[in-house]
Amino acid sequence: MHRWKPNLNSPVPLHRQISAYMLERISSGDWPPGTQIAPQRELCRLFGVNRSTVVTALGQLSALGLIEGRRGGGTRVSPAAAGQSGGWHSYLEEGSHYPNLPAVQAINRLEFEPGLIRLGTGELAPGLLPEQTMMQILGELSCQPQLPLSYEEPLGSLRLRKALSSQLASSGIQADPSSILITSGALQGLQLIAVGLLPRGSTILLEKPSYLYSIHSFQSAGVKFCGLPMDEEGMLISAISAEAARTRAAMLYSIPGFHNPTGVLMSAQRRLEVMETTAALDLPILEDGAYQELWLDSPPLPPLKALDQEGRVLHLGTLSKSVSPGLRLGWVVGPAPVIDRLADIKMQSDYGSSTLSQLVAARWLEGGYHEAHLTKLRGELRSRRAALLELLQVHFAGLAAWNIPAGGFYVWLSLHTPLPPHRLFKAALQAGVLLNTGDLYDRSDGRHLRLSYAYASLPELKAGIVALANIIRHWSNDK
Amino acid sequence: MHRWKPNLNSPVPLHRQISAYMLERISSGDWPPGTQIAPQRELCRLFGVNRSTVVTALGQLSALGLIEGRRGGGTRVSPAAAGQSGGWHSYLEEGSHYPNLPAVQAINRLEFEPGLIRLGTGELAPGLLPEQTMMQILGELSCQPQLPLSYEEPLGSLRLRKALSSQLASSGIQADPSSILITSGALQGLQLIAVGLLPRGSTILLEKPSYLYSIHSFQSAGVKFCGLPMDEEGMLISAISAEAARTRAAMLYSIPGFHNPTGVLMSAQRRLEVMETTAALDLPILEDGAYQELWLDSPPLPPLKALDQEGRVLHLGTLSKSVSPGLRLGWVVGPAPVIDRLADIKMQSDYGSSTLSQLVAARWLEGGYHEAHLTKLRGELRSRRAALLELLQVHFAGLAAWNIPAGGFYVWLSLHTPLPPHRLFKAALQAGVLLNTGDLYDRSDGRHLRLSYAYASLPELKAGIVALANIIRHWSNDK
Ligand SMILES: Cc1ncc(COP(=O)(O)O)c(C=O)c1O
Ligand SMILES: Cc1ncc(COP(=O)(O)O)c(C=O)c1O
Repeated sequence: MHRWKPNLNSPVPLHRQISAYMLERISSGDWPPGTQIAPQRELCRLFGVNRSTVVTALGQLSALGLIEGRRGGGTRVSPAAAGQSGGWHSYLEEGSHYPNLPAVQAINRLEFEPGLIRLGTGELAPGLLPEQTMMQILGELSCQPQLPLSYEEPLGSLRLRKALSSQLASSGIQADPSSILITSGALQGLQLIAVGLLPRGSTILLEKPSYLYSIHSFQSAGVKFCGLPMDEEGMLISAISAEAARTRAAMLYSIPGFHNPTGVLMSAQRRLEVMETTAALDLPILEDGAYQELWLDSPPLPPLKALDQEGRVLHLGTLSKSVSPGLRLGWVVGPAPVIDRLADIKMQSDYGSSTLSQLVAARWLEGGYHEAHLTKLRGELRSRRAALLELLQVHFAGLAAWNIPAGGFYVWLSLHTPLPPHRLFKAALQAGVLLNTGDLYDRSDGRHLRLSYAYASLPELKAGIVALANIIRHWSNDK
Repeated sequence: MHRWKPNLNSPVPLHRQISAYMLERISSGDWPPGTQIAPQRELCRLFGVNRSTVVTALGQLSALGLIEGRRGGGTRVSPAAAGQSGGWHSYLEEGSHYPNLPAVQAINRLEFEPGLIRLGTGELAPGLLPEQTMMQILGELSCQPQLPLSYEEPLGSLRLRKALSSQLASSGIQADPSSILITSGALQGLQLIAVGLLPRGSTILLEKPSYLYSIHSFQSAGVKFCGLPMDEEGMLISAISAEAARTRAAMLYSIPGFHNPTGVLMSAQRRLEVMETTAALDLPILEDGAYQELWLDSPPLPPLKALDQEGRVLHLGTLSKSVSPGLRLGWVVGPAPVIDRLADIKMQSDYGSSTLSQLVAARWLEGGYHEAHLTKLRGELRSRRAALLELLQVHFAGLAAWNIPAGGFYVWLSLHTPLPPHRLFKAALQAGVLLNTGDLYDRSDGRHLRLSYAYASLPELKAGIVALANIIRHWSNDK
């Protein structure tokens, strides 16, 4: 009955491959209602997988109502399966929101498979997160009978917004608590702006490559992208004016501080030029400050928002990159009417962010833990950066070029010989290495890899870089 | 200079009225750049408000870059204000997402004004939330060095999904953890389904009135509503078949357990009929179980999902109505491929819900606190329900009719004489009472009020009902 086998090297989990295979058999009519399914032991042997994989796959089919267990024992294709495959199937391709790129979907799942070396991932290693302090804060909260357990006001916890207001002041941003909206991560801020401020068919300018190409918030809202080339000081000014006029752009998106994925820090001079050029064009700016606190070499440059005299800049921040992604807390800073509009959509999306997360974050900022933590974190990131750069020196000289980032997480590796990203991704996965290839951040890119020194341990970094260099050397020579 | 005064009875906060007034003066050119703004003391006197209101309003204008303080003292309209009013203004009406109804916006803000009696609000009184137990759980977590502070997998915490899987089994729903998606409240589940499964232009059938009319997730995604009439056993079956054919409906939405806003419990017989009729039509169902655990009189009826043999029902649940809205945790249960599609959009919306909230919720369910809490809560809600019904008996006999809900929060008051909802809302607000008028749940309704016995304290309930009866009696006599 079963000559098919799941592909052990595919990024798709084994149980999904198996349930997809069986679904196909059933809906094609190959296995009509009543067909007996082989016992689980037998399926394990046939597919070469362990019991829990088979159980999960069968569970999915039974949730779909396609198979059913029988009292007497055994499982068979259920009568309801006749003509039922159409049920949800047609809905999965519907809906106005785009699916993630297949590679991003695979990464989102594979990041939770144990044993893989995550060489390009966008978060700090768990060991760099302030677990002790967070436990201490929970301990304090467990003694103070003032837990906020109800719905929160539209802008989010006032206590947290006050704490953020002081925090922002230290980066040169003056923001009243009524000009701050708490979001579930900076990502949600992007999502709210996409559906709240930009009409379908409008265009935003952004660096190319950019983090924004790897998500679909804007595209799903019908917003178009126009990518601007960069040099080592940031986006090119000449491109801004030219493209703004050509596309009648509605907004400029930028990550001036330790750009994702290139690691580029926009220079002070370039920041001024961006502000001037966009002022002349009356072009609003969306500044993504996700990594701005993570400077490693010299104290931070003023964010664009700090240079903004006109209320023309919306500024995004997050606790994800420096403190804890799991808290899911970010913020949007901007003129109060804009913030109110975004808050109104947030109320329609999820009625606000977790009040528990907000309380913990407020205590974290009020308690002065943040600065101390950042100082320690910078030290760790500096030595991790040094380690990665040294590994690259040893194993990638002659294969690629790279920048030395002044902060953030990323080294943008530029291969001397372009390689098909999908093949590279699969080959690395077979070697136990999870990659973020350049095409995620610029569809036409076939040359770059985003490497991170923030996640993998030093031994993992070493093993991963060596494996990667071998794969690339092998292929480059083939060409 | 100022003869205008803010309206003390408006639902719009005073500071917003003042900043809107000044914004209008500036953008109309009445106050050109350089115009001196009166000192704060003076503004307080002129507007009849206190200092902090003025400070907040000026803060908003200064965040917009419209006014600026001068070293020498005093504040003036800034030079940048010339021609700047167009900046964000045009963006506020853009964006594909609808704004909330003005009345809902007002309610969302006013719920945080102290002193108002919230007579129709959709949450438990803070005193009914399990604060002690939550503090105890935080205390436990503060001693276990296993805090999940990183990004979470797409479906949400496996630990929480396992706990929910057992919890759901007790209501008759068999759901593998891989068939459960954790969301930030049931509201987010609705949002994800709206943009993830339904193409623009499709139609959903739903009870009329319904909670769904008060939010804009579906309308913003271009989905149309077709309301079905109800009787005291739930939606009318004849209407389902007729309207499904006429509108080629893509889905049926229902709140069978203690419907919001009417409080109706769909009968066991009606549930079977709904399942049969929709099976014949091959019509998927979205079941909203937000209130289903809150039965007060007799043990719960099986949710539609428990009657579902074909994987045709998506089921929504939440901890908001029984445990804590602030945790922002809900779930969607359905066939794995559908759940995966929704999880993918969730990853694009906010990368998952707070891991801290999820951990607390998992402990809450694992620890067996949930059932004990519900038993106690049901007792409290029963006596609150009795109190409200008695107050209605005394003060509304002759003015209105109402149902006796068998669970949930709401009594659906039907006035003998229709009254314009907006006027009623304002009059009640002047008397210190915040209302949820029927038009929020059915645009054409001018006769109903959603009353809740779950929030206001007994003295507040009494004062609120008396005030409301007076207003209504007064007007009904006028007619
Ligand atoms: C540039 C940038 N912005 C925003 C985000 C969103 O992060 P979060 O939603 O966790 O704050 C990320 C995360 O990768 C990022 O790299
Ligand atoms: C019927 C119904 N569904 C869903 C929700 C959403 O609640 P939450 O997002 O807090 O779970 C509500 C809240 O009012 C409701 O009444």
